[in-house]
Amino acid sequence: MITELISVGTEILLGNIVNTNSAYLSEKCAQLGLSVYYQTVVGDNETRMKSTICTALERSDMVILTGGLGPTKDDLTKEVTAELLELPLVEDAHTRELLEHYLKEYEKNNSQRRITANNYKQALVPQGALILDNHNGTAPGLIIEKNGKTVILLPGPPNEMKPMFEEEVFPYLRKRLPEVIYSQMIKICGIGESQVAEEIQDLIDDQTNPTIAPYAKTGEVHLRITAKSEDEKECKKLIKPIVRELKARFGKNIFATDEEKSLEEAIVDMLKDQGLTLALAESCTGGEISARIVNVPGASDVFTHGFVTYSNRAKRKCLGVKKSTLKIDGPVSAKCAKEMAKGGCFFSGADICLSITGLAGPGGGTKELPVGTVFMGCCYNGKVITQEYHFTGNRSKIREQATAHALALLRECIMEGISKKG
Amino acid sequence: MITELISVGTEILLGNIVNTNSAYLSEKCAQLGLSVYYQTVVGDNETRMKSTICTALERSDMVILTGGLGPTKDDLTKEVTAELLELPLVEDAHTRELLEHYLKEYEKNNSQRRITANNYKQALVPQGALILDNHNGTAPGLIIEKNGKTVILLPGPPNEMKPMFEEEVFPYLRKRLPEVIYSQMIKICGIGESQVAEEIQDLIDDQTNPTIAPYAKTGEVHLRITAKSEDEKECKKLIKPIVRELKARFGKNIFATDEEKSLEEAIVDMLKDQGLTLALAESCTGGEISARIVNVPGASDVFTHGFVTYSNRAKRKCLGVKKSTLKIDGPVSAKCAKEMAKGGCFFSGADICLSITGLAGPGGGTKELPVGTVFMGCCYNGKVITQEYHFTGNRSKIREQATAHALALLRECIMEGISKKG
Repeated sequence: MITELISVGTEILLGNIVNTNSAYLSEKCAQLGLSVYYQTVVGDNETRMKSTICTALERSDMVILTGGLGPTKDDLTKEVTAELLELPLVEDAHTRELLEHYLKEYEKNNSQRRITANNYKQALVPQGALILDNHNGTAPGLIIEKNGKTVILLPGPPNEMKPMFEEEVFPYLRKRLPEVIYSQMIKICGIGESQVAEEIQDLIDDQTNPTIAPYAKTGEVHLRITAKSEDEKECKKLIKPIVRELKARFGKNIFATDEEKSLEEAIVDMLKDQGLTLALAESCTGGEISARIVNVPGASDVFTHGFVTYSNRAKRKCLGVKKSTLKIDGPVSAKCAKEMAKGGCFFSGADICLSITGLAGPGGGTKELPVGTVFMGCCYNGKVITQEYHFTGNRSKIREQATAHALALLRECIMEGISKKG
Repeated sequence: MITELISVGTEILLGNIVNTNSAYLSEKCAQLGLSVYYQTVVGDNETRMKSTICTALERSDMVILTGGLGPTKDDLTKEVTAELLELPLVEDAHTRELLEHYLKEYEKNNSQRRITANNYKQALVPQGALILDNHNGTAPGLIIEKNGKTVILLPGPPNEMKPMFEEEVFPYLRKRLPEVIYSQMIKICGIGESQVAEEIQDLIDDQTNPTIAPYAKTGEVHLRITAKSEDEKECKKLIKPIVRELKARFGKNIFATDEEKSLEEAIVDMLKDQGLTLALAESCTGGEISARIVNVPGASDVFTHGFVTYSNRAKRKCLGVKKSTLKIDGPVSAKCAKEMAKGGCFFSGADICLSITGLAGPGGGTKELPVGTVFMGCCYNGKVITQEYHFTGNRSKIREQATAHALALLRECIMEGISKKG
């Protein structure tokens, strides 16, 4: 079923807010196997809204609109939709009652704010529409079926729209779907986007059902394999050989086969499984690697110490980097990375310590040591390995890449046991 | 000039990524006085992309496309645009050279990664297009003028698109505009969005030229005052009384009046001006505050130590938090925050230390200490203050808010001198 998303609101066109509703709804539609071909944002303007909805109704089976259901004169989504579908607006007694209750409560708690009569325009609904109560605001949601098309109107604020979609729209749509959709994720690190693309080109060229879609993230590539069929069992059967093939091709570079699992989560899981603790010694990334690790709920079980040693003094005092190393090799050197990793293990008592030191710029670069030079160290089982990287881009891009590669290196060290690499 | 934004990418239609590019470009267009009537997202599909671009060219004067300029077969934006505008694709020698250099550097530093031939398709450009070098990636940007319409193609990754827009597209567009648009930014922290909105309602109700547009960020509100006139001098004259009024209303909560200045940059500037050094002691934010500070070029002059003390042991060993405090008050307590801040100053020798400890969830909450409870401490001049916060949302949302409020608290402490607050 071809589905189209329309967000209504001049505030989105002015860049005042980021359109997170479309991302949320797109993901939900993908999960339901609905094909979203277009997302459109249009302002609170009658003519342009009409033409946008008309176009959507022509080319799609279902249109989901968010926003413009409020009480003000600018809020036109319901009025325009009803007119286009030739449905009169009638007052819904139940909605009117809920509205009266909600507004009375609101006035009681916000003594300085008055409720104006235009609020009651929210009780008007297109005749025959299915009404979705709004438990977090005043505008009800609406589902309209006419001439083989489905139009769904939802309130704009995400905290009203999301629970309404979750509780009412999602089950409604699931019931109506003829086919089952099932997808499986394969997440890869340590190989670049274009190399992955090349290595799966033959599979993509031949694909019909299932399909493979690659998504590039910094330092990672995600492949989503999606199958459509009569039931989930059949979908899984279709996906299985593709997953097997991808596992054969990318082997140890696959860090997750789970939609939700991040690289840092995979690392935390590995550490937990092996009963290991982790410390991090960061200079140029300034805490970003720690922040990624801490993003994993339960990271506290394995991650004990993070040292952000941005000054030479901190490198010496917190990590025991030698004065002579800082003087002769400099803070951006393999030797410094090595001593940071070793010191990190020593001072924290953790089993593994990853260290990173580099030049993120924009200033400070020389011919011998250009901006983007990054050294990483990893200490594990008393051995330390170091690696040198050269990243390009601006300061934040260099740091983002350094963080992504540090996580990939850390995963590799845990997986292979550092002794094999050292 | 009517402008339309088109984002190309199936990953947006599948909800894999949030379309932040459109929000960024919309804000920039508003700043330039360009009217954005539509934002559209379309997938990597030739037919639908063609029809979307055609529609946009019919109803708008300028179309800005992002995404789909990469090396893979899916990347079609340039090809489709060139075909619609009837422009042949020709190889640009300069772009080819840059690409070769970039890819060689990349291969050198990532020995296990091979560069594939399809990368060179990025050196093909529509004949006559203005080429914008990409300093943070491989796909160049393109500006095409034909039949009175302007089409601008930009790479999809925000860290490539934004600097390109800022450095090349913005000045290009500014020169072409008939009227001069001038805007001034006022950035506020430490006051909520709705309070700011309420306090400027009277100014917004009366506005014609200049206009005030509020933008809410986590923990910050940005107000952009924009004037249109014949010349910049006249614009500045129009803006001046509004800026004066806003400064009178928000006083010390204004941390920047500069478009580019971030809160962390304002803090680093203040520390430099006062010759102070900073340490950070983070638990629940896990390095995020450090990472924000390190994001400022030159932060190394003032930021010496970051302690990410995620375990109780680390809090004791690195910061000297008492065993009894952890046992009786617990790690999420005002007392722990106080000892962390004090210990941070002591062990680092820094003048100021901000500490943070809290419960980001999802697990671990109790009735007395619900998820979202965060304590911060700040030690300066031998005195320590603490503050308690309660944030809502999921783990990452709580940590994001905690980081934003920590920076605001840090700024306040530096500004007021902690003795006044203590």
